Amino acid sequence: MKRAASHQQPEIATLFIAASEHDSNLYYATKFIAPDPFIYMEIKGERLLVMSDLEMDRARTQASVDRVLSYSEVEQRAKKQGVKEPNTVDIVNVVLKEAKIRQLSVPANFPFIHATRLQELGYSLKPKRDPFYERRVVKTAEEVRLIEASQRATEEAVAAAHDALRRAEIRDHALWLDGDVLTSERIKKLINVKLMERDCVAQHTIVAGGEQACDPHNEGTGPLPADRSIIFDVFPRSAASRYFADMSRTVIRGTASPELKRLYQTVKDAQEEAIGKIKDGADGMKIHQGICERFEKAGYKTGLVNGRMQGYFHGTGHGVGLDIHEAPRISRTGSLLQEGHVVTVEPGLYYPGLGAVRIEDMVLVTADGCRNLTDFPKIFELG
Amino acid sequence: MKRAASHQQPEIATLFIAASEHDSNLYYATKFIAPDPFIYMEIKGERLLVMSDLEMDRARTQASVDRVLSYSEVEQRAKKQGVKEPNTVDIVNVVLKEAKIRQLSVPANFPFIHATRLQELGYSLKPKRDPFYERRVVKTAEEVRLIEASQRATEEAVAAAHDALRRAEIRDHALWLDGDVLTSERIKKLINVKLMERDCVAQHTIVAGGEQACDPHNEGTGPLPADRSIIFDVFPRSAASRYFADMSRTVIRGTASPELKRLYQTVKDAQEEAIGKIKDGADGMKIHQGICERFEKAGYKTGLVNGRMQGYFHGTGHGVGLDIHEAPRISRTGSLLQEGHVVTVEPGLYYPGLGAVRIEDMVLVTADGCRNLTDFPKIFELG
Repeated sequence: MKRAASHQQPEIATLFIAASEHDSNLYYATKFIAPDPFIYMEIKGERLLVMSDLEMDRARTQASVDRVLSYSEVEQRAKKQGVKEPNTVDIVNVVLKEAKIRQLSVPANFPFIHATRLQELGYSLKPKRDPFYERRVVKTAEEVRLIEASQRATEEAVAAAHDALRRAEIRDHALWLDGDVLTSERIKKLINVKLMERDCVAQHTIVAGGEQACDPHNEGTGPLPADRSIIFDVFPRSAASRYFADMSRTVIRGTASPELKRLYQTVKDAQEEAIGKIKDGADGMKIHQGICERFEKAGYKTGLVNGRMQGYFHGTGHGVGLDIHEAPRISRTGSLLQEGHVVTVEPGLYYPGLGAVRIEDMVLVTADGCRNLTDFPKIFELG
Repeated sequence: MKRAASHQQPEIATLFIAASEHDSNLYYATKFIAPDPFIYMEIKGERLLVMSDLEMDRARTQASVDRVLSYSEVEQRAKKQGVKEPNTVDIVNVVLKEAKIRQLSVPANFPFIHATRLQELGYSLKPKRDPFYERRVVKTAEEVRLIEASQRATEEAVAAAHDALRRAEIRDHALWLDGDVLTSERIKKLINVKLMERDCVAQHTIVAGGEQACDPHNEGTGPLPADRSIIFDVFPRSAASRYFADMSRTVIRGTASPELKRLYQTVKDAQEEAIGKIKDGADGMKIHQGICERFEKAGYKTGLVNGRMQGYFHGTGHGVGLDIHEAPRISRTGSLLQEGHVVTVEPGLYYPGLGAVRIEDMVLVTADGCRNLTDFPKIFELG
């Protein structure tokens, strides 16, 4: 029987082929974690997975989808249709053909090799930039609770680290504790182990002092200096919820020079002013510009000196959630803030020779301001 | 001046736009870790990065490349060429135009959205499947040393966990230690914290007993059972070297039924037979088939029972390196093994009602056999 011509819009399906371990959109959509790539589709309102025998059981009990298809069953169907050695795209093709889908919405990071094959099979693919799921940017009360739980663990770990610094003795511009020199590595391990005890996975924790801190992503190595600023930047992910937290503090043991004290106060004041501007409808780009201008006015220049950037040369903030860096941005490419966003506010100043300061809180944007999700003192000189 | 027509092959450049934190090929090529996507190119033998102001310093000191370009400098060039708001692909375009490159080799997972834009700009892109860098599959002596270091940490952590199980009291088919019931969560935390103390990051550690263990990727929750098998599967990554290790062991506290003892012995014998077959030139598919046939002959059937897979329904092994699952495979789609491969050998049998056993070592393929990188006893009944 001939089908009547349809005047409806052609149906567009969503397709992911990714490992949710590394793809937070896919985890957000399925609430299912797997280390190897799997197929997820949204077809005519139905959300479905195609899983290997190995993952079937777990997917059926854990994934928040409507249906879980067996990869090996669809593979048999592909073979019956004449495909000798079906690969992932052939499996997708079987399911899409049955659903009469020809158009696909895929994430911006959809693998090019699969996209090419699907186009050869006649599909039309439209990549969609992040945020792939707009609602992921606006956190629910439950998501805020999970981010705050990661943040509480972060604060405990940093408090323990600062206690260790407080207890340290100063000898010859270095810090000593329990008979050993206090290194970046030792303090980072203390933080990371504390966090693991709280089921939070910390990677790339920064404990960098003196000159090292002048490179914002230098994680720090070797003995921690006395009399120079030390930046802590800690951003673990909860192993259970997969939500991140993010906090930076700058401290000093020993004598803080007047120049360092002024650097600290300048960053702290700028950070607090920026937090004061955050609310639903505020422009992230303007908040960032405000900090840049404030630093300039205070005499803190930004630019290349001897081939090296100094001053303020990173964004003011980023969204935090299932990714450590996600929408929105408070930066030169910043976006409008909206109630329910969770963002960091983390200005910093970096001057080789003098030192560096970064102070970072994480806040929840509200209708008329923001709620600071960080509950940790900003103290420069550790007593 | 008109250029003379060239009869040479057109030059093909390599292009990555990815975050090396999640892309091991890019980390392998650059030895540089960054959480956000950056640009890496291989053009006419030169290996170059284009980095943001934030990452310039670190890239210059840490990355194993020939040249590091400044994103903001190239951005200025793009603007002078008339691009109003240059994005990542515009930056790539500036560099490629200057080098007169029109053809690109990209990894299979190259982001579709960037590929589409590059094609619109007239570039021809060829995706290359993994292994993108063939030499990554064959480990150097140094890489083997790093994998072994992660493995030593793994063994220490699992030994501590087994000690805890040994010290536990059995009460009413459950295990008790220091006044509390011994749960999967408690033992996983013990393992993960021990590993963090050794600078290894463990995620998705499996400590699953009884029925839970019958789902191979179930991580385990709640009280650990006595008198039933408990699977440990631990696969941390070294934070410093980024190389993984991988080991599974199955143990029991209390009384092992004859059926469970036979299950254990069958898996152990099959695993050791498979290890005996591994050498340069051996066929991964045949080794996997050998295990399947051995299990069948011993009466252990594989297939769906009441809608659930049981028996042996995962691969026998996978490569281990900068990724936890990488080439080669010892499975139904297995490949030829080659001297220098590091692979796991991990058969398992899973029978709801009875229980599950998986035993996994990691071996280095040699010219005439293999060297077992795992140094940990295979003991079922913990005394």
